[in-house]
Amino acid sequence: MKVKQIRTFVSLNKKCKTENTKTKNYMAIINENYLKLQAGYLFPEIGRRVTEFIEANPDKKVIKMGIGDVTRPLVPSVIKSFHEGVDEMAKAETFHGYGPEQGYAFLREAIAKHSYQVRGIDISADDIFISDGSKCDTGNIQEIFGNENKIAICDPVYPVYADTTVMAGKTGKYNSGHYEGIIYMPCTSENGFIPDLPAETPDLIFLCYPNNPTGTVATKEELKKWVDFAIENKSIILYDAAYEAFIQDNDIPRSIYEIEGAKKVAIEFRSFSKTAGFTGTRCAYTVVPKELVAYDSEGKALPVKPLWNRRQSTKFNGVSYPVQKAAAAIYTEEGKKEVAEVIAYYMENALIMKESLQAAGYEVFGGENAPYIWVKTKNNMKSWDFFDKVLNEANVVGTPGSGFGPAGEGYFRFSAFADRENVLEAMERIKNLD
Amino acid sequence: MKVKQIRTFVSLNKKCKTENTKTKNYMAIINENYLKLQAGYLFPEIGRRVTEFIEANPDKKVIKMGIGDVTRPLVPSVIKSFHEGVDEMAKAETFHGYGPEQGYAFLREAIAKHSYQVRGIDISADDIFISDGSKCDTGNIQEIFGNENKIAICDPVYPVYADTTVMAGKTGKYNSGHYEGIIYMPCTSENGFIPDLPAETPDLIFLCYPNNPTGTVATKEELKKWVDFAIENKSIILYDAAYEAFIQDNDIPRSIYEIEGAKKVAIEFRSFSKTAGFTGTRCAYTVVPKELVAYDSEGKALPVKPLWNRRQSTKFNGVSYPVQKAAAAIYTEEGKKEVAEVIAYYMENALIMKESLQAAGYEVFGGENAPYIWVKTKNNMKSWDFFDKVLNEANVVGTPGSGFGPAGEGYFRFSAFADRENVLEAMERIKNLD
Repeated sequence: MKVKQIRTFVSLNKKCKTENTKTKNYMAIINENYLKLQAGYLFPEIGRRVTEFIEANPDKKVIKMGIGDVTRPLVPSVIKSFHEGVDEMAKAETFHGYGPEQGYAFLREAIAKHSYQVRGIDISADDIFISDGSKCDTGNIQEIFGNENKIAICDPVYPVYADTTVMAGKTGKYNSGHYEGIIYMPCTSENGFIPDLPAETPDLIFLCYPNNPTGTVATKEELKKWVDFAIENKSIILYDAAYEAFIQDNDIPRSIYEIEGAKKVAIEFRSFSKTAGFTGTRCAYTVVPKELVAYDSEGKALPVKPLWNRRQSTKFNGVSYPVQKAAAAIYTEEGKKEVAEVIAYYMENALIMKESLQAAGYEVFGGENAPYIWVKTKNNMKSWDFFDKVLNEANVVGTPGSGFGPAGEGYFRFSAFADRENVLEAMERIKNLD
Repeated sequence: MKVKQIRTFVSLNKKCKTENTKTKNYMAIINENYLKLQAGYLFPEIGRRVTEFIEANPDKKVIKMGIGDVTRPLVPSVIKSFHEGVDEMAKAETFHGYGPEQGYAFLREAIAKHSYQVRGIDISADDIFISDGSKCDTGNIQEIFGNENKIAICDPVYPVYADTTVMAGKTGKYNSGHYEGIIYMPCTSENGFIPDLPAETPDLIFLCYPNNPTGTVATKEELKKWVDFAIENKSIILYDAAYEAFIQDNDIPRSIYEIEGAKKVAIEFRSFSKTAGFTGTRCAYTVVPKELVAYDSEGKALPVKPLWNRRQSTKFNGVSYPVQKAAAAIYTEEGKKEVAEVIAYYMENALIMKESLQAAGYEVFGGENAPYIWVKTKNNMKSWDFFDKVLNEANVVGTPGSGFGPAGEGYFRFSAFADRENVLEAMERIKNLD
């Protein structure tokens, strides 16, 4: 067992000491943490290279499998419910003004029942907070925790966790792919894309399974190791389960709360974006169990849920009523069936991609319980070199693994959120690459 | 002219010095600024008293004119466009996934043209950021400014400005209605509800006109005084214009940008919530002109717009496509007419209320260019005493002025967002109070 250590507030001190000796004229000062952020955000850089290629090659048909955005339309049950919600807004008797900041009870209860309780997970409706997106929630959640906390994230990882940590002032400068003050946990084929417990103990731990970008999953045993670690160290796990709906294997946990003790140490983020094609419709939710505690600087335990409730009710005004109404439709019998068909469509894409890429001689990970395929390049080719090769020679857009962090170097992500016809054509073209 | 002064980082120092000498065990620490927040948020307390009254008096018909929430349904043009947006999401060819975090060009361009350019105000579409609410924006905007900034707010005021300032860590403790470190600017009948320029120079200044809660407006000359002050002191004005659509008097500015030089020193917040009944539909926008600058701690001027763009693209994922489509409908010829009719309905309410309350012997402010009536209680009765009297004797709910800040003591807010029938009945009952 890890012996507890004491650490002083080194990172905070540095900043404060500088400021202590400084004076300033009256003027509006920017949040200088923003200046630490790296300009070359992954997706804009991809966009730039793709646009350049298309302008130079107007006759080529480029197939985009880069950004993880859905392509199938909203299912009929959702559309029907969405329209009904809009119609209610047209009559004074059924009109909805400000709704509860936490979301309508009908949606929170449907989620509690169908996403948790029917699977034997004891989460109640009042622990669920509806929001307009997991991107917002995983960023905003940091506001309720002090800047003295040490954050751990996986490498490679969805860039938002690190960027929002920087913006909040919880880090030092950027240096060779990493921000000072963040604990990076490499995830590579060597450790099966499940990070080892870090040497330095973190206070907040971002985990994401099924994983973006590697498409891999964590078993119950692996998650239990993390929950036990968090309990032992009074850490909190920020568990991003945005892709849980893609899990095919019944033994893989869909929620961190399937692990005993997790309600005391974990916040779970989920979304309708990938589950039901809501990337452009905007609805998600965050679970903050009433059992979850964090600490004041004297070490006194305090429940976290009232803090998140206060944050949301002060800085947020709830999700659009017709959108919540639309989201609730995925829990009807018809809605469930329709959504499952869309997910099966994407997972069939993933299977085709996995088999094609393997047949083309690539080492391939993910894609079995997640809509992402994580490919090892051949001959240790750099990720961006492989990006350019695939774009120039196969006219296919993927995402360079190194864009998700240094440990992603030499890997490449393909998204299964594409039309079947494009998937088949893209795979055919890649097969013929030398 | 005010001589510039130098100030040291006293408020920051205090916190840092404490922390410098502290050590901590590894554990997740809360943002302790939240502990400074006052529990008794205004509207929950009103809700509590109203619920208690209704339970004790189930036979009484209570008329609610407290919370500023709209009651008229969305207009037909908006409903039509909303449905069209939903239908587009039902077909792969017209489906929308992730949209631009800044909002769709069609909406940004419509706003630039109809809200600004046709009135001779030179604001371009790319300075406009679409969001899901002004509550979010006025809170989130603080993230891009450092905690060393001194904030000025009016008293009384919409509670979100102060609460979000506290949560960000820009203040000290709460003390007799005020948070230490915030510059409060009293707005009373003595100064016509326009604050005097403060003795201590602020870096960020929240102004809201037409004003919530007083329902009063600022003339061009008055706003010019503030813009000049901000230019002189390198401050930034955070201008909440959520109620601009209610301005009836053509001489009253609808935008801070009607004032020369304002683009260099002001951010403007606007919303579809009150303008078009979107409180439950969620759409708003913030204008950050490219000319606006803030400073780094060395005093170097930096444009603010890229910072807000980075904040929004990292922590936000855009507004629901059908909602943006619905919002754009208010700029069509038909939509403009329909929205104007709804506003005229509420303003007719305001006129009835103003005249009734004056006839009943009250001193009344606002209600001419805003949907709020700000009433001086008789015989200096305390706001909450008047609240209880009006609730118990007239079964009408309003908002105690002191809930918006100490300078609101002895005042009371009535909202004109009500059904005509209820307005008439409520006024009849209040007329008969002794």
